[in-house]
Amino acid sequence: MTTWFHWIDLAGVAVFAMSGTLMAYKKHMDGFGVVVLAAVTAIGGGTLRDMILDLPVFWVKDPSFFYAILAAALITIVWLRVSQRFPLRYLLVADAFGLAFFNVMGLQKALTYGASPLVAIALGTMTGVFGGLIRDVMCREIPVVLKGELYATTCIAGGIVYLLCDAFNAPAYTAMVMAMLTTLFARLAAMKWHWHLPVFEAGTKLD
Amino acid sequence: MTTWFHWIDLAGVAVFAMSGTLMAYKKHMDGFGVVVLAAVTAIGGGTLRDMILDLPVFWVKDPSFFYAILAAALITIVWLRVSQRFPLRYLLVADAFGLAFFNVMGLQKALTYGASPLVAIALGTMTGVFGGLIRDVMCREIPVVLKGELYATTCIAGGIVYLLCDAFNAPAYTAMVMAMLTTLFARLAAMKWHWHLPVFEAGTKLD
Amino acid sequence: MTTWFHWIDLAGVAVFAMSGTLMAYKKHMDGFGVVVLAAVTAIGGGTLRDMILDLPVFWVKDPSFFYAILAAALITIVWLRVSQRFPLRYLLVADAFGLAFFNVMGLQKALTYGASPLVAIALGTMTGVFGGLIRDVMCREIPVVLKGELYATTCIAGGIVYLLCDAFNAPAYTAMVMAMLTTLFARLAAMKWHWHLPVFEAGTKLD
Repeated sequence: MTTWFHWIDLAGVAVFAMSGTLMAYKKHMDGFGVVVLAAVTAIGGGTLRDMILDLPVFWVKDPSFFYAILAAALITIVWLRVSQRFPLRYLLVADAFGLAFFNVMGLQKALTYGASPLVAIALGTMTGVFGGLIRDVMCREIPVVLKGELYATTCIAGGIVYLLCDAFNAPAYTAMVMAMLTTLFARLAAMKWHWHLPVFEAGTKLD
Repeated sequence: MTTWFHWIDLAGVAVFAMSGTLMAYKKHMDGFGVVVLAAVTAIGGGTLRDMILDLPVFWVKDPSFFYAILAAALITIVWLRVSQRFPLRYLLVADAFGLAFFNVMGLQKALTYGASPLVAIALGTMTGVFGGLIRDVMCREIPVVLKGELYATTCIAGGIVYLLCDAFNAPAYTAMVMAMLTTLFARLAAMKWHWHLPVFEAGTKLD
Repeated sequence: MTTWFHWIDLAGVAVFAMSGTLMAYKKHMDGFGVVVLAAVTAIGGGTLRDMILDLPVFWVKDPSFFYAILAAALITIVWLRVSQRFPLRYLLVADAFGLAFFNVMGLQKALTYGASPLVAIALGTMTGVFGGLIRDVMCREIPVVLKGELYATTCIAGGIVYLLCDAFNAPAYTAMVMAMLTTLFARLAAMKWHWHLPVFEAGTKLD
């Protein structure tokens, strides 16, 4: 079970690293920029979570995450050099799986180490979205998670489902699966039907 | 006394969260962007301080800060939807109170955990201004604290007053109040009379 | 030996602080902006490394780093006010020395506290380049380390040399000197002959 989890974790890291590599590609960065953006996107959220919870950062004693990042970056680079097309659609679907997994893992880790429920939802969401947020800030984009698209909100929804399952004494495993499915399907539905949160309409005068 | 402090702390967090919400409004962000910007502005400085001092981050086991942030963001959003005007002036005055309070709290926490005086001033200032700095970086603004206006410098002034009081063996309570008043009035005066620090004049050639 | 190291460390911090001050000058920042940018550039990388390794941050109990930063910022400001020219060339050479030193110090600290070799290379590189990266992000520049120039890659080369020396049972002191010289000369050569890493060519369609 633990090994199985570790593989999902590595797969999630690889998917996020690919999205960082693609951003580096769009911004015409060099070889090192690719590795930094890939790494920051993949492990940024979990690193911040562990620092805030005052725990050892998960990748310091386990180099397998770095191998996953390097492999994902390399595959993406080779793909972009060889092929004329990149299947962004499939990457976004894979990203939804990664988001769902990271969110629930972060939430659980926060609960295990004594965070209150609301804080645990925040830390789970942070685990899922913060890597992409730092990636965007580094590339001088306004972070996508701050604008229109339904992304982080699906993490919050998953977190609420987890806590509800917990409140009704569902076993931890059930709560995890329910929460992951909630985030996953909410995200896939948002992508399919272009769900958006209401954006502020400018109109009030600030003075 | 501790309870009383906690309420001031929450009020400061709420004021800072309002300024984050206003920035999200100016940048046309969605519901989640508002919450992220509000939270980052409100607790970013204190989070970094606690991570640097290697202490448990203050909001992990106390969800009241998150409730304050959510309430402040909600009130601001409703206000902006209902009213045609937002009292930015009053918010800036409230922000000066929050700045003064956070600065001295950060300074004291740093001193308590063994930071040297100069480092404690830096950490107090960081507590006061870093949230706003991250907010601006996320929104692709050059941080206001790095430009012209007298903001962070009032924190440094407050910190020096604290250490002077301490050097003359004033009781901790007196030092706190004196330092807060220094930061508060310096900030209010800077706002009223548009005090600026000298900005570099471009002229030297870099080669 | 320890004292001697501390002086090199302070010199490296001062050089990095100067490059932060110059950036503040280019961006027309005020007195406080200068200090923040100088400090962030000088100690940002080491601070992040210590937080990730869950160690006490190196400057919290030792104010000498802050004195070095303030002195470096002051000297740079006075220079820019008095002189018509700034010797950017010499600063870049000094920066290469600082980079080589910080990289190897970071690598060693990471190895000492149990990081795996690959992670140690990453943390050494981070110590060397992260301060400059945050400086650039704060100033809304795309970080130079992410673009074209051979900078961070010289840290990785130095790290590999260190681990190779270690694998052949060279004494720690030899490994350190060899790694520093590798990073230093690779960086100086990259500056002299304008070495670049291959940058992505845009051509593949993302869809």
